[in-house]
Amino acid sequence: KMAPGIGGFGGLYPLGDSYLVASTDGVGTKLKLAFETGIHDTIGIDLVAMSVNDIVTSGAKPLFFLDYFGTSQLDVDLAEKVIKGIVNGCKQSDCALLGGETAEMPDFYAKGEYDLSGFAVGIVKKDALIDGKNIKLGDVLIGFPSSGVHSNGFSLVRRVLARSGLSLDDQLPGHDGGPFSLGEALMAPTVIYVKQLLDIISKGGVKGIAHITGGGFTDNIPRVFPPGLGAKIFTNSWHVPAVFKWLQEAGNIDDPEMRRTFNMGIGLVAVVAPEAAERILAESDSVYRIGVVVNGEGVEHVSHA
Amino acid sequence: KMAPGIGGFGGLYPLGDSYLVASTDGVGTKLKLAFETGIHDTIGIDLVAMSVNDIVTSGAKPLFFLDYFGTSQLDVDLAEKVIKGIVNGCKQSDCALLGGETAEMPDFYAKGEYDLSGFAVGIVKKDALIDGKNIKLGDVLIGFPSSGVHSNGFSLVRRVLARSGLSLDDQLPGHDGGPFSLGEALMAPTVIYVKQLLDIISKGGVKGIAHITGGGFTDNIPRVFPPGLGAKIFTNSWHVPAVFKWLQEAGNIDDPEMRRTFNMGIGLVAVVAPEAAERILAESDSVYRIGVVVNGEGVEHVSHA
Repeated sequence: KMAPGIGGFGGLYPLGDSYLVASTDGVGTKLKLAFETGIHDTIGIDLVAMSVNDIVTSGAKPLFFLDYFGTSQLDVDLAEKVIKGIVNGCKQSDCALLGGETAEMPDFYAKGEYDLSGFAVGIVKKDALIDGKNIKLGDVLIGFPSSGVHSNGFSLVRRVLARSGLSLDDQLPGHDGGPFSLGEALMAPTVIYVKQLLDIISKGGVKGIAHITGGGFTDNIPRVFPPGLGAKIFTNSWHVPAVFKWLQEAGNIDDPEMRRTFNMGIGLVAVVAPEAAERILAESDSVYRIGVVVNGEGVEHVSHA
Repeated sequence: KMAPGIGGFGGLYPLGDSYLVASTDGVGTKLKLAFETGIHDTIGIDLVAMSVNDIVTSGAKPLFFLDYFGTSQLDVDLAEKVIKGIVNGCKQSDCALLGGETAEMPDFYAKGEYDLSGFAVGIVKKDALIDGKNIKLGDVLIGFPSSGVHSNGFSLVRRVLARSGLSLDDQLPGHDGGPFSLGEALMAPTVIYVKQLLDIISKGGVKGIAHITGGGFTDNIPRVFPPGLGAKIFTNSWHVPAVFKWLQEAGNIDDPEMRRTFNMGIGLVAVVAPEAAERILAESDSVYRIGVVVNGEGVEHVSHA
């Protein structure tokens, strides 16, 4: 594969004074939980989220989205539920659903199962591109809360679930709100950060953005850093959702594996100038100062600032 | 799904004085033949072809392509062969391979199997958009030869193959060249018409273009016609490849079903002004005058002009 532009989670294509930014992704084995729970009307939100959250890391505004739905035999009711989620995701990211392909492929998928892939294109002026290259020592990492596991790490989730002896209908252990099943917790749709982020970007000071997908903080945060700089993360600076605590205990998973598999409650990280960080934190209750830029490489976790 | 723009095989997104044109598609059950023949290095050409041939019907130049490769367990050698075909297809259509996603999804696909989807984006000036709306009575249909079945109709192909008692290693009946197996004939990669077509379009007179995919002439040609106009096709005006003759005989398939399933040797049809038709036919030995625009609806087949 050709490499995407430096610092980017999407591929860049120069067009006049702008870049088109494109990304493609699926939702992985989260689909298996959709099949098992029968929750099909939000997986399309996950699908859109995976691509548009990638695009917005470049500072690009998503323009349009296309989907590919592959199944052995078309179930119209089921397909409508999936499309409903895609339409919802496109609304949340203010982009057009420009087309799609429904492929009926006998003998490819098990009965009632399907695969999805999505494709989004956005645009950003060349002089507004966010690529991490201006990140400096002392810049601040702002964390945006996730809704849970989002759309990565589900092969491990499924192993933990099998090992735990719990079913998807059982209550999520440690959940302190009302009734909430494991199935609902695990199927919570991926947060789409597009509108919130574009608003913040428009006010200046955002230098790099990491979409926390497979690989967690460990792999995704360094992707936006210039050589010689790393991140110090304050592990007590945000609330880790109950679903991660359950996964870690039930799966007997150590901290490093948790951090390189799951988002741990932070679905997107923006690296911003200190002044911008003050403003962003003052303007929103729902984001956290989760770390700072330090000399070095990679991501170091400490328990307090 | 939202409807694509009138006359278009790709979705249109307005951007300044241009349209971005996007298309997504897979290669359907042709993949099963790739698995059975072990020919994996050209299916990527099919994948690119399906999307870029859609885009060029609007007069758009393809800019970039992204692929999604889903499999249960990644086989690097096999994936490299598939990517090789995708790279080849991108070269043939002069577009960038901007990115892609390889999704490893345990328990989704049978061992050694995979699914592919592709996404292409192109651009065309608004005043150069080809959308069929200027097509007039007496305009000429120019046919561009296919390499065989291309990437549609393979569920029927597989049924015929099973019924015929032949194997993919057997020689293609009726083939008048050198040795040529059924597997080779059926796996022949889809022709990418992009460069040839953009050259012809640049000289003027092209009013509508139909990519002949699932649905054959019957469904695809009317997609570009204004209301009240149809096509008269001269069935003896081009050479129908041996593979279609074999499919029809071995499958005992009538003409209408053949025509609404297969391309019958013509993978793309351009509707052009009569003067442009003269020029195009004079400049190329490899295209045919296959029909004319008539009053009415749909596609009528006659044996001679």
